[in-house]
Amino acid sequence: MSKNPKLAMVEQYMRALTEHDMAAITDLYADDATVEDPVGSEPLSGKDAIIRFYEVAFSSGISARLDGPVRIAANHAVFPFVVELNPGNGEMRIDVIDQFTFNDDNKVVAMKAFWGEENMTTP
Amino acid sequence: MSKNPKLAMVEQYMRALTEHDMAAITDLYADDATVEDPVGSEPLSGKDAIIRFYEVAFSSGISARLDGPVRIAANHAVFPFVVELNPGNGEMRIDVIDQFTFNDDNKVVAMKAFWGEENMTTP
Repeated sequence: MSKNPKLAMVEQYMRALTEHDMAAITDLYADDATVEDPVGSEPLSGKDAIIRFYEVAFSSGISARLDGPVRIAANHAVFPFVVELNPGNGEMRIDVIDQFTFNDDNKVVAMKAFWGEENMTTP
Repeated sequence: MSKNPKLAMVEQYMRALTEHDMAAITDLYADDATVEDPVGSEPLSGKDAIIRFYEVAFSSGISARLDGPVRIAANHAVFPFVVELNPGNGEMRIDVIDQFTFNDDNKVVAMKAFWGEENMTTP
Protein backbone atom coordinates (compact mmCIF):
# COMPACT_ATOMS: atom_id res chain seq x y z
CA MET A 1 0.00 0.00 0.00
CA SER A 2 1.47 3.38 -0.94
CA LYS A 3 1.57 5.97 1.79
CA ASN A 4 -1.44 8.21 2.22
CA PRO A 5 -0.40 11.55 0.66
CA LYS A 6 -1.74 13.44 3.70
CA LEU A 7 0.65 11.49 5.93
CA ALA A 8 3.53 12.34 3.61
CA MET A 9 2.56 16.02 3.77
CA VAL A 10 2.64 16.01 7.57
CA GLU A 11 6.08 14.36 7.58
CA GLN A 12 7.27 16.96 5.04
CA TYR A 13 5.97 19.67 7.37
CA MET A 14 7.86 18.34 10.40
CA ARG A 15 11.05 18.14 8.33
CA ALA A 16 10.57 21.63 6.88
CA LEU A 17 9.96 23.16 10.31
CA THR A 18 13.12 21.57 11.67
CA GLU A 19 15.30 22.33 8.62
CA HIS A 20 13.85 25.85 8.19
CA ASP A 21 12.98 25.00 4.58
CA MET A 22 10.66 27.77 3.44
CA ALA A 23 10.26 26.31 -0.07
CA ALA A 24 8.94 23.07 1.43
CA ILE A 25 6.61 24.99 3.76
CA THR A 26 5.10 27.14 1.03
CA ASP A 27 4.74 24.09 -1.23
CA LEU A 28 2.35 22.60 1.35
CA TYR A 29 -0.12 25.48 1.25
CA ALA A 30 -2.72 26.54 -1.31
CA ASP A 31 -2.42 30.16 -2.46
CA ASP A 32 -5.52 31.22 -0.50
CA ALA A 33 -4.69 29.21 2.63
CA THR A 34 -5.39 30.42 6.15
CA VAL A 35 -3.30 29.80 9.29
CA GLU A 36 -4.76 30.17 12.80
CA ASP A 37 -1.91 29.59 15.29
CA PRO A 38 -2.89 29.39 18.07
CA VAL A 39 -6.62 28.84 17.61
CA GLY A 40 -8.31 31.90 19.04
CA SER A 41 -5.90 34.35 17.41
CA GLU A 42 -6.66 36.33 14.23
CA PRO A 43 -6.19 33.98 11.25
CA LEU A 44 -3.53 34.82 8.67
CA SER A 45 -4.60 34.61 5.05
CA GLY A 46 -2.57 34.10 1.88
CA LYS A 47 0.99 33.00 1.17
CA ASP A 48 2.70 36.33 1.92
CA ALA A 49 1.32 36.41 5.45
CA ILE A 50 2.10 32.73 5.92
CA ILE A 51 5.73 33.18 4.80
CA ARG A 52 6.18 36.05 7.28
CA PHE A 53 4.74 33.82 10.03
CA TYR A 54 7.26 31.05 9.36
CA GLU A 55 10.14 33.52 9.05
CA VAL A 56 9.46 34.49 12.66
CA ALA A 57 9.27 30.82 13.68
CA PHE A 58 12.54 30.01 11.93
CA SER A 59 14.26 32.95 13.65
CA SER A 60 13.42 31.29 17.00
CA GLY A 61 15.48 28.23 16.06
CA ILE A 62 12.34 26.05 15.88
CA SER A 63 12.46 22.30 15.60
CA ALA A 64 9.49 19.92 15.54
CA ARG A 65 8.80 16.21 15.79
CA LEU A 66 5.68 14.07 15.70
CA ASP A 67 4.54 12.78 19.10
CA GLY A 68 1.98 10.17 18.05
CA PRO A 69 0.11 8.88 15.02
CA VAL A 70 -1.33 11.25 12.42
CA ARG A 71 -5.12 10.94 12.45
CA ILE A 72 -6.82 11.11 9.03
CA ALA A 73 -10.55 11.90 8.78
CA ALA A 74 -12.28 13.06 5.61
CA ASN A 75 -10.13 15.91 4.19
CA HIS A 76 -8.29 16.52 7.46
CA ALA A 77 -5.01 15.37 8.98
CA VAL A 78 -4.73 16.02 12.73
CA PHE A 79 -1.47 15.31 14.52
CA PRO A 80 0.23 15.74 17.90
CA PHE A 81 3.74 17.13 17.86
CA VAL A 82 6.38 18.80 19.98
CA VAL A 83 7.90 22.14 19.10
CA GLU A 84 11.20 23.30 20.63
CA LEU A 85 12.23 26.96 20.51
CA ASN A 86 15.27 29.05 21.45
CA PRO A 87 17.75 26.16 21.83
CA GLY A 88 20.41 26.99 24.39
CA ASN A 89 18.92 30.41 25.18
CA GLY A 90 15.61 30.40 27.04
CA GLU A 91 14.61 27.03 25.66
CA MET A 92 10.90 26.23 25.55
CA ARG A 93 8.82 23.21 24.62
CA ILE A 94 5.28 23.48 23.30
CA ASP A 95 2.95 20.49 22.89
CA VAL A 96 0.78 21.26 19.86
CA ILE A 97 -1.94 19.54 17.86
CA ASP A 98 -2.34 20.82 14.31
CA GLN A 99 -5.34 20.35 12.06
CA PHE A 100 -4.56 20.46 8.31
CA THR A 101 -7.57 20.73 5.98
CA PHE A 102 -6.76 19.77 2.40
CA ASN A 103 -8.27 20.74 -0.93
CA ASP A 104 -8.74 18.29 -3.80
CA ASP A 105 -5.15 18.93 -4.95
CA ASN A 106 -3.87 17.84 -1.49
CA LYS A 107 -2.72 21.36 -0.66
CA VAL A 108 -3.42 22.70 2.83
CA VAL A 109 -6.21 25.30 2.69
CA ALA A 110 -6.52 25.75 6.45
CA MET A 111 -4.11 25.11 9.33
CA LYS A 112 -5.30 25.39 12.91
CA ALA A 113 -2.84 24.96 15.79
CA PHE A 114 -4.25 24.00 19.17
CA TRP A 115 -2.04 24.95 22.12
CA GLY A 116 -2.14 27.29 25.08
CA GLU A 117 -0.23 28.28 28.19
CA GLU A 118 -0.84 24.84 29.76
CA ASN A 119 1.17 23.38 26.85
CA MET A 120 4.31 25.52 27.26
CA THR A 121 7.11 24.12 29.43
CA THR A 122 10.70 25.08 30.11
CA PRO A 123 13.28 22.38 30.81
CA MET B 1 -2.81 26.48 40.59
CA SER B 2 -6.14 24.69 40.41
CA LYS B 3 -6.61 22.42 37.43
CA ASN B 4 -8.06 23.90 34.27
CA PRO B 5 -11.71 22.71 34.24
CA LYS B 6 -11.38 21.68 30.58
CA LEU B 7 -8.57 19.30 31.53
CA ALA B 8 -10.70 17.85 34.30
CA MET B 9 -13.54 17.31 31.81
CA VAL B 10 -11.29 15.39 29.45
CA GLU B 11 -10.09 13.17 32.29
CA GLN B 12 -13.70 12.61 33.35
CA TYR B 13 -14.46 11.60 29.75
CA MET B 14 -11.65 9.01 29.60
CA ARG B 15 -12.82 7.53 32.90
CA ALA B 16 -16.47 7.50 31.82
CA LEU B 17 -15.63 5.79 28.52
CA THR B 18 -13.66 3.10 30.32
CA GLU B 19 -16.16 2.60 33.17
CA HIS B 20 -19.19 2.80 30.86
CA ASP B 21 -20.60 5.56 33.06
CA MET B 22 -23.45 7.06 31.05
CA ALA B 23 -24.35 9.60 33.75
CA ALA B 24 -20.81 11.00 33.62
CA ILE B 25 -20.92 11.09 29.82
CA THR B 26 -24.20 12.93 29.58
CA ASP B 27 -23.09 15.35 32.31
CA LEU B 28 -20.29 16.49 29.98
CA TYR B 29 -22.57 17.57 27.16
CA ALA B 30 -24.87 20.56 26.72
CA ASP B 31 -28.47 19.69 25.84
CA ASP B 32 -28.07 20.86 22.24
CA ALA B 33 -24.61 19.33 21.73
CA THR B 34 -23.47 17.76 18.47
CA VAL B 35 -21.18 14.73 18.03
CA GLU B 36 -19.35 14.05 14.75
CA ASP B 37 -17.50 10.74 15.16
CA PRO B 38 -15.64 10.22 12.91
CA VAL B 39 -15.36 13.62 11.26
CA GLY B 40 -16.92 13.25 7.82
CA SER B 41 -19.92 11.30 9.10
CA GLU B 42 -23.37 12.80 9.69
CA PRO B 43 -23.27 14.69 13.02
CA LEU B 44 -25.57 13.54 15.82
CA SER B 45 -27.53 16.26 17.58
CA GLY B 46 -29.05 16.34 21.06
CA LYS B 47 -28.70 14.21 24.17
CA ASP B 48 -31.00 11.35 23.06
CA ALA B 49 -28.92 10.71 19.95
CA ILE B 50 -25.70 11.07 21.95
CA ILE B 51 -26.85 8.54 24.57
CA ARG B 52 -27.68 6.02 21.85
CA PHE B 53 -24.22 6.57 20.34
CA TYR B 54 -22.47 5.79 23.63
CA GLU B 55 -24.74 2.79 24.33
CA VAL B 56 -23.34 1.24 21.15
CA ALA B 57 -19.79 2.12 22.19
CA PHE B 58 -20.27 0.62 25.66
CA SER B 59 -21.67 -2.58 24.13
CA SER B 60 -18.32 -3.00 22.31
CA GLY B 61 -16.48 -3.17 25.65
CA ILE B 62 -14.76 0.14 24.98
CA SER B 63 -11.89 1.44 27.08
CA ALA B 64 -9.93 4.66 26.52
CA ARG B 65 -6.77 6.32 27.78
CA LEU B 66 -5.00 9.57 27.04
CA ASP B 67 -1.91 9.23 24.84
CA GLY B 68 -0.35 12.68 25.29
CA PRO B 69 -1.04 16.13 26.72
CA VAL B 70 -4.46 17.78 26.36
CA ARG B 71 -4.07 20.91 24.23
CA ILE B 72 -6.19 23.89 25.32
CA ALA B 73 -6.84 26.76 22.88
CA ALA B 74 -9.60 29.35 23.30
CA ASN B 75 -12.81 27.36 24.06
CA HIS B 76 -11.42 24.06 22.78
CA ALA B 77 -9.70 21.05 24.32
CA VAL B 78 -8.00 18.77 21.78
CA PHE B 79 -6.48 15.51 22.93
CA PRO B 80 -4.87 12.33 21.59
CA PHE B 81 -6.12 9.06 23.01
CA VAL B 82 -6.28 5.34 22.40
CA VAL B 83 -9.55 3.42 22.23
CA GLU B 84 -9.68 -0.35 22.63
CA LEU B 85 -12.72 -2.34 21.52
CA ASN B 86 -13.93 -5.94 21.68
CA PRO B 87 -11.47 -7.18 24.33
CA GLY B 88 -10.70 -10.86 23.85
CA ASN B 89 -12.93 -11.15 20.80
CA GLY B 90 -11.72 -9.40 17.66
CA GLU B 91 -9.81 -6.81 19.63
CA MET B 92 -9.11 -3.51 17.88
CA ARG B 93 -7.16 -0.37 18.74
CA ILE B 94 -8.04 3.03 17.32
CA ASP B 95 -5.81 6.10 17.69
CA VAL B 96 -8.16 9.08 17.95
CA ILE B 97 -7.87 12.83 18.43
CA ASP B 98 -11.01 14.47 19.83
CA GLN B 99 -11.87 18.14 19.72
CA PHE B 100 -14.20 19.33 22.50
CA THR B 101 -15.71 22.81 22.07
CA PHE B 102 -17.09 24.25 25.31
CA ASN B 103 -19.80 26.79 26.03
CA ASP B 104 -19.53 29.39 28.78
CA ASP B 105 -20.82 26.84 31.33
CA ASN B 106 -17.95 24.49 30.44
CA LYS B 107 -20.31 21.98 28.86
CA VAL B 108 -19.30 20.38 25.56
CA VAL B 109 -21.38 21.82 22.72
CA ALA B 110 -19.50 20.06 19.92
CA MET B 111 -17.36 16.94 19.84
CA LYS B 112 -15.43 16.02 16.72
CA ALA B 113 -13.45 12.77 16.57
CA PHE B 114 -10.62 12.56 14.04
CA TRP B 115 -9.70 9.01 13.01
CA GLY B 116 -9.81 6.85 9.91
CA GLU B 117 -8.83 3.45 8.59
CA GLU B 118 -5.11 4.32 8.93
CA ASN B 119 -5.73 4.61 12.68
CA MET B 120 -7.30 1.17 13.23
CA THR B 121 -5.00 -1.68 14.19
CA THR B 122 -5.47 -5.23 15.40
CA PRO B 123 -2.97 -6.77 17.79
